[in-house]
Amino acid sequence: MKKTAVIMGSISDLNAVQPAVDLLKELSIPFEAHVYSAHRTPQETSSFAATAKDNGFGVIIAAAGKAAHLAGAIAAATTLPVIGIPIKSSTLDGLDALLSTVQMPQGLPVATVAIDGSYNAAMLAAQIIAVEDVELAGKLAALRRSMSENVLKKDAELQERL
Amino acid sequence: MKKTAVIMGSISDLNAVQPAVDLLKELSIPFEAHVYSAHRTPQETSSFAATAKDNGFGVIIAAAGKAAHLAGAIAAATTLPVIGIPIKSSTLDGLDALLSTVQMPQGLPVATVAIDGSYNAAMLAAQIIAVEDVELAGKLAALRRSMSENVLKKDAELQERL
Amino acid sequence: MKKTAVIMGSISDLNAVQPAVDLLKELSIPFEAHVYSAHRTPQETSSFAATAKDNGFGVIIAAAGKAAHLAGAIAAATTLPVIGIPIKSSTLDGLDALLSTVQMPQGLPVATVAIDGSYNAAMLAAQIIAVEDVELAGKLAALRRSMSENVLKKDAELQERL
Amino acid sequence: MKKTAVIMGSISDLNAVQPAVDLLKELSIPFEAHVYSAHRTPQETSSFAATAKDNGFGVIIAAAGKAAHLAGAIAAATTLPVIGIPIKSSTLDGLDALLSTVQMPQGLPVATVAIDGSYNAAMLAAQIIAVEDVELAGKLAALRRSMSENVLKKDAELQERL
Amino acid sequence: MKKTAVIMGSISDLNAVQPAVDLLKELSIPFEAHVYSAHRTPQETSSFAATAKDNGFGVIIAAAGKAAHLAGAIAAATTLPVIGIPIKSSTLDGLDALLSTVQMPQGLPVATVAIDGSYNAAMLAAQIIAVEDVELAGKLAALRRSMSENVLKKDAELQERL
Amino acid sequence: MKKTAVIMGSISDLNAVQPAVDLLKELSIPFEAHVYSAHRTPQETSSFAATAKDNGFGVIIAAAGKAAHLAGAIAAATTLPVIGIPIKSSTLDGLDALLSTVQMPQGLPVATVAIDGSYNAAMLAAQIIAVEDVELAGKLAALRRSMSENVLKKDAELQERL
Amino acid sequence: MKKTAVIMGSISDLNAVQPAVDLLKELSIPFEAHVYSAHRTPQETSSFAATAKDNGFGVIIAAAGKAAHLAGAIAAATTLPVIGIPIKSSTLDGLDALLSTVQMPQGLPVATVAIDGSYNAAMLAAQIIAVEDVELAGKLAALRRSMSENVLKKDAELQERL
Amino acid sequence: MKKTAVIMGSISDLNAVQPAVDLLKELSIPFEAHVYSAHRTPQETSSFAATAKDNGFGVIIAAAGKAAHLAGAIAAATTLPVIGIPIKSSTLDGLDALLSTVQMPQGLPVATVAIDGSYNAAMLAAQIIAVEDVELAGKLAALRRSMSENVLKKDAELQERL
Repeated sequence: MKKTAVIMGSISDLNAVQPAVDLLKELSIPFEAHVYSAHRTPQETSSFAATAKDNGFGVIIAAAGKAAHLAGAIAAATTLPVIGIPIKSSTLDGLDALLSTVQMPQGLPVATVAIDGSYNAAMLAAQIIAVEDVELAGKLAALRRSMSENVLKKDAELQERL
Repeated sequence: MKKTAVIMGSISDLNAVQPAVDLLKELSIPFEAHVYSAHRTPQETSSFAATAKDNGFGVIIAAAGKAAHLAGAIAAATTLPVIGIPIKSSTLDGLDALLSTVQMPQGLPVATVAIDGSYNAAMLAAQIIAVEDVELAGKLAALRRSMSENVLKKDAELQERL
Repeated sequence: MKKTAVIMGSISDLNAVQPAVDLLKELSIPFEAHVYSAHRTPQETSSFAATAKDNGFGVIIAAAGKAAHLAGAIAAATTLPVIGIPIKSSTLDGLDALLSTVQMPQGLPVATVAIDGSYNAAMLAAQIIAVEDVELAGKLAALRRSMSENVLKKDAELQERL
Repeated sequence: MKKTAVIMGSISDLNAVQPAVDLLKELSIPFEAHVYSAHRTPQETSSFAATAKDNGFGVIIAAAGKAAHLAGAIAAATTLPVIGIPIKSSTLDGLDALLSTVQMPQGLPVATVAIDGSYNAAMLAAQIIAVEDVELAGKLAALRRSMSENVLKKDAELQERL
Repeated sequence: MKKTAVIMGSISDLNAVQPAVDLLKELSIPFEAHVYSAHRTPQETSSFAATAKDNGFGVIIAAAGKAAHLAGAIAAATTLPVIGIPIKSSTLDGLDALLSTVQMPQGLPVATVAIDGSYNAAMLAAQIIAVEDVELAGKLAALRRSMSENVLKKDAELQERL
Repeated sequence: MKKTAVIMGSISDLNAVQPAVDLLKELSIPFEAHVYSAHRTPQETSSFAATAKDNGFGVIIAAAGKAAHLAGAIAAATTLPVIGIPIKSSTLDGLDALLSTVQMPQGLPVATVAIDGSYNAAMLAAQIIAVEDVELAGKLAALRRSMSENVLKKDAELQERL
Repeated sequence: MKKTAVIMGSISDLNAVQPAVDLLKELSIPFEAHVYSAHRTPQETSSFAATAKDNGFGVIIAAAGKAAHLAGAIAAATTLPVIGIPIKSSTLDGLDALLSTVQMPQGLPVATVAIDGSYNAAMLAAQIIAVEDVELAGKLAALRRSMSENVLKKDAELQERL
Repeated sequence: MKKTAVIMGSISDLNAVQPAVDLLKELSIPFEAHVYSAHRTPQETSSFAATAKDNGFGVIIAAAGKAAHLAGAIAAATTLPVIGIPIKSSTLDGLDALLSTVQMPQGLPVATVAIDGSYNAAMLAAQIIAVEDVELAGKLAALRRSMSENVLKKDAELQERL
């Protein structure tokens, strides 16, 4: 199976990114996690992205806040699908990171998920890999059923509480 | 090659969606385009999504405006990657469609591109398919080089104009 | 009297929805409360809405946060009036849920109340039922007078404090 | 059948409100339309609302722009359900009217529809009346099927164009 | 001297309004404070405003949150200058109250101050009264000089700390 | 009667400000209009404001767009009431001018009216002067009645059109 | 004198950037203009920035729209001051470009000017160079006086028109 | 070396401004810090700015919140480069200060950094001075390398933690 990369712009984003790491582990998707900054380590960021395909990666997840350029900078150096997680910081409630991540120019998409949506970033990575991986697709279908059953279980519990 | 589906919520979205169709054709990616509404034809939308994988689709693109639920409704019925295009309508400059598309709950990502970003939606679909398709990956790399060369050509022209 | 349904997208919305439940009880309006998710249990959500009229419901209240599709998904499956409560979540202060709930396309209204406005959702449900229910209309008029008297009492208390 | 009132804050809102009037006519719902301003004719606005129930009205629709207080002022004088249409004006893209209409305080809901959503306001009024009116409910179900068929027809046409 | 009225939409706004009361006292401006709600006590609100001029008031301050109609409802019933204080509530950071207060239609201005700006509301009331009151104008000039001196004193203290 | 000053930040604001000038003329309120910029002519702006009271002015209206500092700069140099008109410019729909005008710090209020609300700025100036001017107060009451009658006349016309 | 670079992300930004070019010419500041894209030509963008100081540049101006990463990408490769011009595009009124440009992370400032503010970008570049260039400082002071005189001339003309 | 001025609008901004002061010290850039308010001490603010160049300053940093006019008021009185720090206050998450600072009119730029971005304001001041100061430029390059190395170190640590 191709690997998924999880890149965060700062080590301070690790908490926000953890649900992505956890889901990748749960789904047995091989991954690497790195701290690379679009602005502080542009060369390393760019080199990683440019060689990612040859290094066995299939998808790259990038998480950053404020003027969140990380996903875009990675997208500029690879044709692999890049998933962007806008991270909420101390001001503007994540709107800055969302717009900086999603409003990419023609030709260079970033697959953007919800603000602080790292669980969904890993889920999307899994869905991309599962397009050609029957076993993983099966795991995702099971996970979806489990989510569904959990809602119905909560509904049943609610009936008893009311 | 797996097919890409391009779903629009209303026939009035066709103009906005056309660049996606054109790029899929240019890249020889097989596709189907449909008008299905999350609200007016919820059953057909849901049925299409639920059977898309078995019908040979690998990626689904969904375009909708205002309270843009289409991509989310599709994501709820498939584990295929779903790409959402928020369409700008007559008020709020597309912000309503962007937030309705991108802020999906845990477990059900929509890979959101820029407002009115249908070209990029098709590009992202191509990148997803190209993860396991060497020939398509080659086309994308060539397209990227061409984009790059075009910028440099414009820069050269600018030098003559100044 | 026709029943009112109170649907929440997640059991975590129960606290936010409680004032609606309390007011329905206070007004002796029969109701059912359920946890159904537009995305995790689309079939159950749709089935509930499609059979609600025949099952004796007159109004459906739906509460959801972020890309709040629940009220819209319900509205797509019934012609009963659907009241939407946008729930504030951890980012964007409820603006995402408000726009996702209120900006519905032509033909499928959602009667949207304020962000986190579950008390008002139940009040609106009561007002809808009271259109043809003289006794309930009387209760609402009394409640309104009580609200009015309470303001005037607070004004009187204020005069003593100043 | 109880009448529906369509109140606009200014005669300049008539164009924006026309789709509501047209749908009420199409559904044979009796209605009156008035120009009353929350600020320029507060007494007349308040009197109309206070006597509306006794005058045979079941629902009141109110359309206004900017600091759109009309629906709220009407809601303050009646316990009938009040539907608010936020009208987009020359600045802020209707956001001012939306927030002024929907963010009502506890106890006084306004059933808010989309910005410039007058068609949906009339549809919501019809849905409210149809709670206890089997014939109108039948018309709404037929209208919904027609909307659905129209989408599928457009989808069929699209297949021929592609 | 003409009196200033301080109207709050709910007793829960008293804390936010307190700085206005304190400044009026400090400037020896006669005032009355009341709890009147545009929605819960529309008659009392309107009556107070309509008779305010004859009752010796020169300026009316109105504080309200969310769909803040109070200042507008008062402005509709008097030609006295009305000062609006948008109060921040639990969502949207006061933007709803600001737009609901300031975006008044032609002919009915509300003199809007900053969100939660009750001190400034009282200051503006004082400035309005001082147009024809030399003694109060002198107090305001002295207060302004004191504010100025305080800044310069803080600057001096800063020099010692650095 | 004390004069009203109408200050615009740029001659390009004259069209937007014209309704203020027209209303002042209609009400026979003596006024001066000037082009002074907070940034391009800070000294002249400040001098005008500082001497306005002694020069017979009672109110100052200031209109500016973008980072609209004009009203605030004037307020810093006088204790006269200052009315701010946020002017919509080519971006951000006037939100920048609104926030720059209304969010003044403690002690220095600007009485802000709606975006592009110059008619209301003049009306507010008139209301301020009318606090101590019985004749002008009478004119304002008559103007208010005329506005009211005009709405009712439009309502009557609407009845004939429907 | 050190040169100023004017970088635009796309040749379609040339019109928006022209006022910067014109002012640099008017002030006889040597400059180069280039089309380099942060995403389409990341290497060329980065190389230009990394060698700019050695190539005789003192300031770099970068103009881009939407997810405007250009200024940030340049800032990441040089310690020269980088001035960012957020360009308004077809959606969101330039807010996306503004936030993407100004909200840079710690250590990598972009000196951001107003949306579409290319004249001011060149002015800021001139001010930076003028810190150590007496002659240019003199030109700027003269230009400022001329701006000031122009306002006063417009004020004089206004007196004749009123 | 020319001095840098750090002006804050209120002593309560000192905490937010401290990182700027610390970085200037770390880089051995001579500076003065002052509390001057655009509104409470307009004369002192203007005088300081007008004489700053002659008093040996090369750059002026200005920090203010809400309707943040301080940087603009300083820019109006000098041709030195002025750097604006928008300070987040109790409402609107700093958006008011950002727009009030950055949206300056033609001819009077303010080099705006991120909301609460005082570290970056000092960095930008250093970059401006370093245009003609080889030693300082060397320090900045070293600081940049250190930032870069720190990211890579964190990346290495992350590898051990995963």
